Formats: sequence, C-alpha cells, structure tokens
Amino acid sequence: MRLHVPTPLRWSDLDAYGHVNNARMLSLLEEARIQAFWVNDDGTAEHAVGRSTAVIDASPGATTLTLIARQEVEYLEAIPYQRLPLDIELWIGRMGGASLEVCYEVHSPVGAEPRTLYTRAATTIVLVDAATGKPRRIGEHERAAWEPYLEAPVEFRHR
Amino acid sequence: MRLHVPTPLRWSDLDAYGHVNNARMLSLLEEARIQAFWVNDDGTAEHAVGRSTAVIDASPGATTLTLIARQEVEYLEAIPYQRLPLDIELWIGRMGGASLEVCYEVHSPVGAEPRTLYTRAATTIVLVDAATGKPRRIGEHERAAWEPYLEAPVEFRHR
Amino acid sequence: MRLHVPTPLRWSDLDAYGHVNNARMLSLLEEARIQAFWVNDDGTAEHAVGRSTAVIDASPGATTLTLIARQEVEYLEAIPYQRLPLDIELWIGRMGGASLEVCYEVHSPVGAEPRTLYTRAATTIVLVDAATGKPRRIGEHERAAWEPYLEAPVEFRHR
Amino acid sequence: MRLHVPTPLRWSDLDAYGHVNNARMLSLLEEARIQAFWVNDDGTAEHAVGRSTAVIDASPGATTLTLIARQEVEYLEAIPYQRLPLDIELWIGRMGGASLEVCYEVHSPVGAEPRTLYTRAATTIVLVDAATGKPRRIGEHERAAWEPYLEAPVEFRHR
Repeated sequence: MRLHVPTPLRWSDLDAYGHVNNARMLSLLEEARIQAFWVNDDGTAEHAVGRSTAVIDASPGATTLTLIARQEVEYLEAIPYQRLPLDIELWIGRMGGASLEVCYEVHSPVGAEPRTLYTRAATTIVLVDAATGKPRRIGEHERAAWEPYLEAPVEFRHR
Repeated sequence: MRLHVPTPLRWSDLDAYGHVNNARMLSLLEEARIQAFWVNDDGTAEHAVGRSTAVIDASPGATTLTLIARQEVEYLEAIPYQRLPLDIELWIGRMGGASLEVCYEVHSPVGAEPRTLYTRAATTIVLVDAATGKPRRIGEHERAAWEPYLEAPVEFRHR
Repeated sequence: MRLHVPTPLRWSDLDAYGHVNNARMLSLLEEARIQAFWVNDDGTAEHAVGRSTAVIDASPGATTLTLIARQEVEYLEAIPYQRLPLDIELWIGRMGGASLEVCYEVHSPVGAEPRTLYTRAATTIVLVDAATGKPRRIGEHERAAWEPYLEAPVEFRHR
Repeated sequence: MRLHVPTPLRWSDLDAYGHVNNARMLSLLEEARIQAFWVNDDGTAEHAVGRSTAVIDASPGATTLTLIARQEVEYLEAIPYQRLPLDIELWIGRMGGASLEVCYEVHSPVGAEPRTLYTRAATTIVLVDAATGKPRRIGEHERAAWEPYLEAPVEFRHR
C-alpha cells in the first residue's frame, strides 16, 4: 500500500533553468517523508495526509534521530512551478534491523492531465539513538505500523 | 482588507538553532505573495486562498517582472517546525507609480492558542517590463484590483 | 574601520530570474557575518579574512546564541552568477546593551570594473544566553574587540 | 586523474540536526561541478581550481543546457560546519554519446587530521541543445578535454 502525500512547491524551488532544482527535490522528498512519519504532539498518528505510518517522534529532544545513509534519484521530467501540490507516492521498499528504505514516485498534481511521473527515488534511513549516537533496532510497534506499506522497492531504469 | 495566505513550513526551513531561519522567512513571504498575486493559467484570478489580488502574470515568458527593491523584517518570536501552515496576513501599504509596498504579519496557524505574531515585514516591489528591463507603470486594471487591499503600512517598532 | 569579507556565490543562489535571489542574499550576509565573528577552535580570533572582530563562540554547545531581531535590505542592482567572491564590507553601526547592529555594503568582486554596489543592509543581533534564553549584556572584552569597527550606520535611501 | 575543488560550506547548509543537510550536499556537488566545468568569460579554461575540464559555456544564453538525469549519494559521515573548504575530488566515471557521469568523493579540508571521507556520489548529466531541447552529442573538443579525467566510476558500498 502506498501513501499519497500532497507536497506544495515554492517558487524558490526553481533554479536559473526555471525548473525545480535537482537538490531541492531532496527537500521535497524529505518533507513528504516527514509528513508521513511525523507523530502528532498528542502522540496520535493520524494527520493531514489521511493515513499515516507515523510512529517516530521527530520533535526536538526526541530519543531517535533519523539519519540519511543513501539516496538515489532518477529525474525523468523537468518540473515547472505550479500552484497545486505534487502528488508524492511513498512506500517502504525494505525494512532491515536498524534501517529502512523509503521509496518515492513524484507525480504531477492530482487531476492534472496527463498524469506525469517526474521523479523516482529511494532513501535509506538509519534509526539512531539520540543519547548514544548508535543505530538502534526498529521496534515491534514501528514494524507493525510500517508493514502495511511494504512493497517491492522502486525499480530504477538507469543504473 | 487583508488577505490570509496559509503558508506551510518545511523541516528544511529550520537552521541549526532549530527555528525557521531568518533568510528562509523571506522565501515564505515570497511564496505567500506569489499565492496572492498569481494569475491562473486560464487568466482568472480566484484561487486557493479564497480571495485574490492576482492580476500579474508571473509565469515564464510573462511580460512583467516583479523585482524586489527593498525588504524590512522584524523577527518577534522564534518559529518552530509545525505541521499546520502559518497564517500570513498580507496587504498593500502603499501604491506608487511603478512600485508597491506589500506588508505582512506572520501569525501562528489558524486555531492555535494563543495566537502568536511571529514576524512583521514589508517588501517594496517594482514592476519591470521584461522586454525593456525598465520600470513600467501600474495599470488601471491592476490598480482597481489592488485598491481594496490598501491599508496603512505595517508599523515597525524598532527603527 | 570596515572588514572586507570575500563571499563566494553558488549557482544555486540564483532564482528563476537568473539573479541572486533576494532571500538568499540574507544567507550571504549571514555567512559574511559568521566569517567576521567566528572564533577559531583554538580560541584565537585571526582568520581567513585577515582582520576579525571574532569574539563570539558560535560553535555547537556555545554559551551565547546570536538571534536576529531585525533586517533591512536595499537591493540596488541585480547580481549575476560570477566565479569571483563578492566583496562584502561589514561594520558595526550601533552597539547597545545586549544588541548590536551590523551594517553591510555588498560590492562586485575586488578588481571588477566598474565597482558596483549591489546591496545595502543592516541586521540587528541580540546576544542571548543559551542556558536561560534571555538577552545578556555585551561583555567588556567583546566591546573592546568591536569598537574599532564602529562607524555611522548604513544610510538607506528609500525608507 | 582527479580534480580537487575546494568547496566552502555555509552555516546555512546545516539543518536542525546541526550537520550539513543531505539535500544541501547536492548543491555543494553542483557548485564543485560548475567550478570544474565552467568556462571563463574570455573563453579560457584555467581557473581557481588550478586545472580544469572547463569546456562548457554555462552562462546565460549559452547554447548547451546540462540537465541532471540521475544522482546517487552515500552519506558516510555527518559533516559539521567548518571554516576551511571541503576538498571535493571530482572525476568522470563514464562518457557516453550525449551524457557523462561525474563522480565525487567529498573529503575533510586539506590538512585536516585525520582525513575523513564524508560522502561518495555520482551524477549523470545529459547535454541538451538549448534551442531544440533535445540531447546533443559530446563534441570532439569536449571529449579531448575530459579524457584525462576519465577513471573507473565510484564504487558504492550499499546498493
């Protein structure tokens, strides 16, 4: 099962070529990921994107840091500025002991015709204990919350 | 009359102090301004923020560039990352021959208690003819569209 | 007396208009300011810019935070991408009890003909005790280090 | 043969974790790449980094756009803010008909002990004719200029 996270652009995401900058795309993926993983202040997990895998507390003083170990991105189509949010599909391609791979397909806004696949990407995240700075295992609660979103990893065309 | 533009934060707006970076605030103001001034592709002016002063075509190949001549910002309270969009109030503090001053008050999200005024700001924009690179006068159509949003300029406390 | 801080641009500082973005200019000013205020790890103050007012320890875990209370910027000329660093002149326009105003003139790279004044700006900084979160007074050591760089505040043309 | 491009950090490259943000790393790679590929205004290729593969004119109005088709990044060590520029090693891992793969190793500043490998990365660039928007072949002049920098592609450890 995939999450759909509506992710608004900013005009400042454009670079001098007039398209969304390739580095900025990673900030958009980061934001979609946080929307999906973020826990509400009251500890509940439901939020703006409707469904949520949110079980990590990413607020200041949290006990877990989520470090980025690896990113892979394929840029298929240039993305212009547009007012409607991009439709970022997000799922988990792999769950290891202390790490997981988040996969993405970045699409044109819901309702846009034709639907365009702009970008494919995958991020490897390591859960790190904030106190010790060492990787810590994915807990049972987290594993259960994420399992519904486990699918085959994104397939890159150009490797 | 003021426009209220809901403006979402990104986690990447934070700097190493864990608050929205002072420079990034200008990108947030820019985005609110574009949401308010942007013309739909079909030439109509209504859009996501409900009401709109949108009469400038800011799309690529547009005939008018909007250049920033001046900015003034007062940072009153540090802004943490939060999932709900900031409530940016936006109005026009002054309309000249070829320039206008956009004023802002950046507030905590609608519904947050207590309501917090984070930032006050003003931006002087000059309308420039894309072909000649010279300032061009505000047209009658634009002036009429903007007049309802004309109020006294923002008052800065520390000058 | 003014400090001259050579400040390199990045291509990613450009926006879709092909010039240095107005918000990004504040990051450039921030970097010039840090170059000027930064203390070496060994506690000495001399550094890359030759002379330095560096007496604040801005490293992680430092006891003082430098918060931005106010910024004012006049954008006089659009700045293209260029390989040589901008020449940012920096001085102190006012020293209060717990705050100071840093003034800037951003010029074209040293040696460029004609010399162009791109931007004028001023930043009000408040020294905050990291432990209490409250403003703390400028110390005698700091005051002595900064006094040589005290000049009349930058004069803005359009207020 | 590899180019060594000294690439300065900015304090604003840090995110709320106090380290260089993963997305911002791509802007640093972009800047190193531009330093290496950039042609001087007088058409000569030598520049600040000593040696150069600079044969593409990336200035506004240039006839070739360099589009990013793919990026892969391994983040090995968190990067703190530091005053000395990072030492980015850069070479060409593959040259195709209309595309090339630029490889990077991002190291701690020259002279820092111990030398730390922070990041490994590779970028696939497609040369695009600005007039037609279509890929165009790498020219003989370009191929000759780049061949000395052709080495085995970077080897990623975690795929």
